[in-house]
Amino acid sequence: MTQLSSADGAFLDDLGRAVPGLRVRPVEARYVEEPRDRWAGAAAAVVQPANVDEVALVIRACTDARVPVVPYGGGTGLVGGQLMPEGDAAPLILSLERMNAVRDVHPSENVMVAEAGCILADVQAAAAEAGRLFPLSLASEGSARIGGLLATNAGGVNVLRYGNARAQVLGLEAVLPDGTVWHGLKRLHKDNTGYDLRNLLVGSEGTLGIITAAALKLAPRPAGEATAMLAVTSPRAALDLLALVREEVGEGVSAFELIHRAGLDFLAETLPEVKRPWADGPPEWMVLVDLGLSRGRDPVAAMEAIFEAGAAEGLVQDGIIAQSEAQRRELWDVREHIPEANRKIGSVSSHDISLPLGSVPEFIEVAGPKLAEIAEFRINCFGHLGDGNLHYNVFPMPGKSRADYEEERPQVKRCLHDLVHGFGGSVSAEHGIGRLKVADLERYGDPAKLAAMRAIKAALDPAGIMNPGAVLR
Amino acid sequence: MTQLSSADGAFLDDLGRAVPGLRVRPVEARYVEEPRDRWAGAAAAVVQPANVDEVALVIRACTDARVPVVPYGGGTGLVGGQLMPEGDAAPLILSLERMNAVRDVHPSENVMVAEAGCILADVQAAAAEAGRLFPLSLASEGSARIGGLLATNAGGVNVLRYGNARAQVLGLEAVLPDGTVWHGLKRLHKDNTGYDLRNLLVGSEGTLGIITAAALKLAPRPAGEATAMLAVTSPRAALDLLALVREEVGEGVSAFELIHRAGLDFLAETLPEVKRPWADGPPEWMVLVDLGLSRGRDPVAAMEAIFEAGAAEGLVQDGIIAQSEAQRRELWDVREHIPEANRKIGSVSSHDISLPLGSVPEFIEVAGPKLAEIAEFRINCFGHLGDGNLHYNVFPMPGKSRADYEEERPQVKRCLHDLVHGFGGSVSAEHGIGRLKVADLERYGDPAKLAAMRAIKAALDPAGIMNPGAVLR
Repeated sequence: MTQLSSADGAFLDDLGRAVPGLRVRPVEARYVEEPRDRWAGAAAAVVQPANVDEVALVIRACTDARVPVVPYGGGTGLVGGQLMPEGDAAPLILSLERMNAVRDVHPSENVMVAEAGCILADVQAAAAEAGRLFPLSLASEGSARIGGLLATNAGGVNVLRYGNARAQVLGLEAVLPDGTVWHGLKRLHKDNTGYDLRNLLVGSEGTLGIITAAALKLAPRPAGEATAMLAVTSPRAALDLLALVREEVGEGVSAFELIHRAGLDFLAETLPEVKRPWADGPPEWMVLVDLGLSRGRDPVAAMEAIFEAGAAEGLVQDGIIAQSEAQRRELWDVREHIPEANRKIGSVSSHDISLPLGSVPEFIEVAGPKLAEIAEFRINCFGHLGDGNLHYNVFPMPGKSRADYEEERPQVKRCLHDLVHGFGGSVSAEHGIGRLKVADLERYGDPAKLAAMRAIKAALDPAGIMNPGAVLR
Repeated sequence: MTQLSSADGAFLDDLGRAVPGLRVRPVEARYVEEPRDRWAGAAAAVVQPANVDEVALVIRACTDARVPVVPYGGGTGLVGGQLMPEGDAAPLILSLERMNAVRDVHPSENVMVAEAGCILADVQAAAAEAGRLFPLSLASEGSARIGGLLATNAGGVNVLRYGNARAQVLGLEAVLPDGTVWHGLKRLHKDNTGYDLRNLLVGSEGTLGIITAAALKLAPRPAGEATAMLAVTSPRAALDLLALVREEVGEGVSAFELIHRAGLDFLAETLPEVKRPWADGPPEWMVLVDLGLSRGRDPVAAMEAIFEAGAAEGLVQDGIIAQSEAQRRELWDVREHIPEANRKIGSVSSHDISLPLGSVPEFIEVAGPKLAEIAEFRINCFGHLGDGNLHYNVFPMPGKSRADYEEERPQVKRCLHDLVHGFGGSVSAEHGIGRLKVADLERYGDPAKLAAMRAIKAALDPAGIMNPGAVLR
């Protein structure tokens, strides 16, 4: 691999001539910070292209001059994919923020064409305005942008029903590392003409090209919705309950989130203003269930039937079925504030893992005792149970802080990731590899797959300019 | 690219030593024929490995000796992906037929692990035995094998609800062109650890590696099903009716097939034993609708509500709602025999196309008159309307035969494919490129995507041994 060069003054002068009118900005702090403030990036300059042609010209110039490029969306990634650390060659940050137009909405086709810089909440709103649903939904939806969401194959709370970001894409427009534009904004549900470049770019975290726009699938809006928080006897009971829910409403279950009592205890400790739903204190395990049904079926009645069947089978002990939109909001508020409470407590180590569904209960049973062999911890285990995706986060004991566990942190991570790997699970379910998990990928990844990934990277980006150091070393 | 060598006697002797016990067979006719008998393949020998290790050793030997390999599933492909024509280097056919075990079924996870040689109908049966549904369903399911179905990203009648073959896969085991094995049989719904090699292999038609097993998604079985054949006033009315069906039952619509009267006329002409559902002769346009609902909703009642709403909006003129499983079967028999009737009539030219949903009616309106400028034809247009996928087939006038239109055939194909391309559609919706549509891919494919495909092919298969001539020249 050739040596990379900094995006220095001479390069920026050349770039200005090659791309007349290109907006070049100094590197404001927001471009080199990350949400958990754990590490910082470095860059020479930020460019904010206005359209795909400008993106193509910038990439062409970077390829010719061997200048590294970090594509930048909303900056909400949790694994450092958007931050290149201080190093030999200072990169150019390419921010898609000005390419934020919804180009087209086709309600009768359930399709929208949106540019990479669109904020997720704006895309959701544009879909709602057309009487449709854009189902991707996650905590950072007020700032995360479509390009980054696709580049990282983001997940969230509705994956169970609608799939992850990958499943929302019909077509892409993207600039490849040689500066050519792939005009692939097809609005087709079936297209078997050649290799699946779309899915290769989705999830490649900016290392194989830059997504500039996407044809996104929309869904019909459910006619009615219902939400319940149900106390379950165990994680295994929660899984059995999910099967029961599916028998009752088929694909009508939109979210099925596992919550442990620790999450509500943390809320009580750090965010007392969040209304807590259990008068007598929270149960050990809960699930938050969302139904969205078509007309002809009352969702609250369906939820009541689920509650009764779950109780009859000994899976459900207690429950709260929201009777109004305000009550639905209150139940979701609990779930959505747990990450904030976690941040306030300050985790020793956080893990975004997935497991074969059937292994989730056993994993939860054995992980706690294994960690206890290292030290005493508080554990907050919650997440998207329907997808087998847990956020398994490890916290200091009361009176201690994150800093007291510097020595244990690597052991905790290794212990949990080894366990996950042993169950055939993944050490990055929805956050991606970025720069934080490159070593994990090397340790746990399949060697043949890794070799294929390296060959693909070298073939499409021989100069190695696209987000260097992310995903692959 | 280096020159390829035939799988000659010396190579087969070496191969026998390198893979003790490998089953080598002469080339029976079935390996070099294709379903429509339009062209033939050639090969030096057939190997039938018993397991993934044997596949890996065979591929390694072929790579070392630069011997071309044609992966072989059920031989049901319609675009010649499984047939290498007579040429300089006679290939080895690698048939997966002996790797036909269902390795594992996990009903509680809705997952099955099946080897590539499993016949689709057997996989469906194994799922049913576990109380689950494997939703991939198509005409050749009695002989098509899982490996080929995934390699071609097959479609069929349930794509509308469950997605194409791609959407059924959680993980893969595959042998890459260098003979390494990718052990990727993960049973995970979320796994963001690196590039999407899974989707790259799915749909690559055996040119990037050989799928040897897959972790497949299963679905819960609907509690009740209903089928109707409804007379619609136009293709546009059919699309409006689909939107109405989705409002009524959400994801509960499993199939939504458009049928033109020509299909039923062809049935009457060639297969009079197939029971025809319309006493007074068929309407101009029909849709065949399948609902599969969870408990708590009667599917026949839902179908009646759909019929009434469709009639009230002027979309539906008449209809037959099946009142028994036998009647459901009769309605589906009509749809499933149309391809056979087509073969008996003998098409001038057949087209597996897809369009943006909203463009389907206009395409149908303009395509007929455009073709009439070339000559007079009979047209049978039918297919998976919910996916925007039409089988638009052009037939001789009564008294004439396919052979009478040799001159017009290229014009017909060009005329229709140009039109499809102009609408932003695809000239291969579900059958793939194979060897039949390589020139179409070059004509209509995006140049940047094609260059990326060639770079990926060269990177993963530098010797060019994997199914040479398929997809890419």
